[in-house]
Amino acid sequence: MPAWVGIDLGGTNARLALVHQGQVVANLRFATEAGRGPDDLVHRLAAGVAELGRAAVARGLTLGGVGIASPGVLDRAQGLILTSPNLPAMAGYPLAQRLAAACDAPVALENDANLYALGEHRFGAGRGVDDLICFTLGTGVGGGLVLGGRLVVGPLGCGGEIGHTLVEPGGRKCGCEARGCLEAYASATGLVGALEEALAAGRPTSLRPGDGVRAMDLAAQAGDPLAVELFHQAGLMLGRALANLVALTGLDLAIIGGGVAKGWGLMEPGCRAALADRLRIVKPGRVRIVAAALGQEAPLLGAAAFAQTTLGSQPARQPA
Amino acid sequence: MPAWVGIDLGGTNARLALVHQGQVVANLRFATEAGRGPDDLVHRLAAGVAELGRAAVARGLTLGGVGIASPGVLDRAQGLILTSPNLPAMAGYPLAQRLAAACDAPVALENDANLYALGEHRFGAGRGVDDLICFTLGTGVGGGLVLGGRLVVGPLGCGGEIGHTLVEPGGRKCGCEARGCLEAYASATGLVGALEEALAAGRPTSLRPGDGVRAMDLAAQAGDPLAVELFHQAGLMLGRALANLVALTGLDLAIIGGGVAKGWGLMEPGCRAALADRLRIVKPGRVRIVAAALGQEAPLLGAAAFAQTTLGSQPARQPA
Repeated sequence: MPAWVGIDLGGTNARLALVHQGQVVANLRFATEAGRGPDDLVHRLAAGVAELGRAAVARGLTLGGVGIASPGVLDRAQGLILTSPNLPAMAGYPLAQRLAAACDAPVALENDANLYALGEHRFGAGRGVDDLICFTLGTGVGGGLVLGGRLVVGPLGCGGEIGHTLVEPGGRKCGCEARGCLEAYASATGLVGALEEALAAGRPTSLRPGDGVRAMDLAAQAGDPLAVELFHQAGLMLGRALANLVALTGLDLAIIGGGVAKGWGLMEPGCRAALADRLRIVKPGRVRIVAAALGQEAPLLGAAAFAQTTLGSQPARQPA
Repeated sequence: MPAWVGIDLGGTNARLALVHQGQVVANLRFATEAGRGPDDLVHRLAAGVAELGRAAVARGLTLGGVGIASPGVLDRAQGLILTSPNLPAMAGYPLAQRLAAACDAPVALENDANLYALGEHRFGAGRGVDDLICFTLGTGVGGGLVLGGRLVVGPLGCGGEIGHTLVEPGGRKCGCEARGCLEAYASATGLVGALEEALAAGRPTSLRPGDGVRAMDLAAQAGDPLAVELFHQAGLMLGRALANLVALTGLDLAIIGGGVAKGWGLMEPGCRAALADRLRIVKPGRVRIVAAALGQEAPLLGAAAFAQTTLGSQPARQPA
């Protein structure tokens, strides 16, 4: 019976998990160190897959294949990362093909925010629900959209990118170079950038230059008005983006995940207020907003599930 | 072999068509006059369906069923209009059920903008394309979204409502009561409202109070700066909404239909400029924007196709 390896390939760490029937049965991690070169990274990933393959055999399982949750913009047909701010060394490198050759198993590649959403859809807060958006609030704002039980990617491949939808025309500049994207308000980068602007403008606050999202979260919990305001603003912008998505798709479930989601309690009132303000064609109260259930396991489980769906029709192989 | 009746139920006119293999083979129309009461309207619709049923028999066809393209917010399970500004007399009336009983044929109900999109998808400018949005620029801004070859409605039933997505926070008030919706800028109502505001503000123009979209179109063609500006602004807002949709779904085809689309040449530069400004994660030039191909036949063909898809598994009946 096949088990599947999910890989969460981050700019800092690579995490690998052997997944069987929606459960992580073995896992390992190492520092990505992409600067050592793509071939070196593939070599280390293949060694990790081989180790998990042996763990599979020890449990009487076979290795069905590997799913990679990757940051950045992908060329799915070629199985490679086109561009990624977090993994520039991998741009244009035939990752799926080289890893498949190195570990003698089929490999499927998909965007990490999409696979986070797929993990929550199959095994987490979206289990049994056919239509949902999953926000991953981290360095950026990722999004994964599931409609009719299927991940939405589209012919342009960018489906789910709610972080780059417009919430404030002429607003703060985003990492994508456009102005007023959700990501410019509701990501760690956006929140810290807004703090720096407020500090430069002399706004009174207990926060200081160089403070990050954790310090902002603590300050807001302690009642710092600027910190409270910035989280509230992030929530408002999330609500604007979510209201647009609801009007466009009729979905009724939003899942909030990622490191910045720890501050969700500070964002939720703004989000709900924006939904109520924007959504007149359906009752805003029908939109459920819930916390992600799987945390860091979401992209691993999603990547394994994606591998199973994508590669499952191919014959399972014994690990080398 | 079954043929299908498509009904475009408008506030002013009801249009009916007998459709066989994507072609209108017979049609008729009458004034809706919903004020005469829902039972009266159903009686007249059933008479029209019976006439088209006889036309089907004369061609050696049977009547498979009826699809209704209806304005407003629908309860699909109950087959009724919940609310509709254009057909207030029909709100809450079990339209599908009563018409099915009156014409002894199964009846399916769907939103008119959605069925316009379905018509263009199956037989018009979106033929052979799995992912598209169809804008219907008329009194309001309707939208129909097709992803993976399927109409997107969602559990809340409002899928495709791009007219009520946010393009200008705090902007012009929309018919839905929210501020800054696309519909408040790119519909006939929105364009005329913007003209009236500009006239009240004393803006120089050849246009006068009471002028409609046709007069605005002619004035813009003649170089009137205010008219040109308002169509350009409508295009910008369309581009903002479309860029959001592209980021969310990865689709690459937008179809522009409806009466106000006659002014598309005046809107397109603004739309393209907004797409280029907003879309950084994919190349904006990959998004095709084309005119609708079927005009007023789109909702009729869409309604018939919807009936066939929805009701096709039920046994076809001879018309009464």
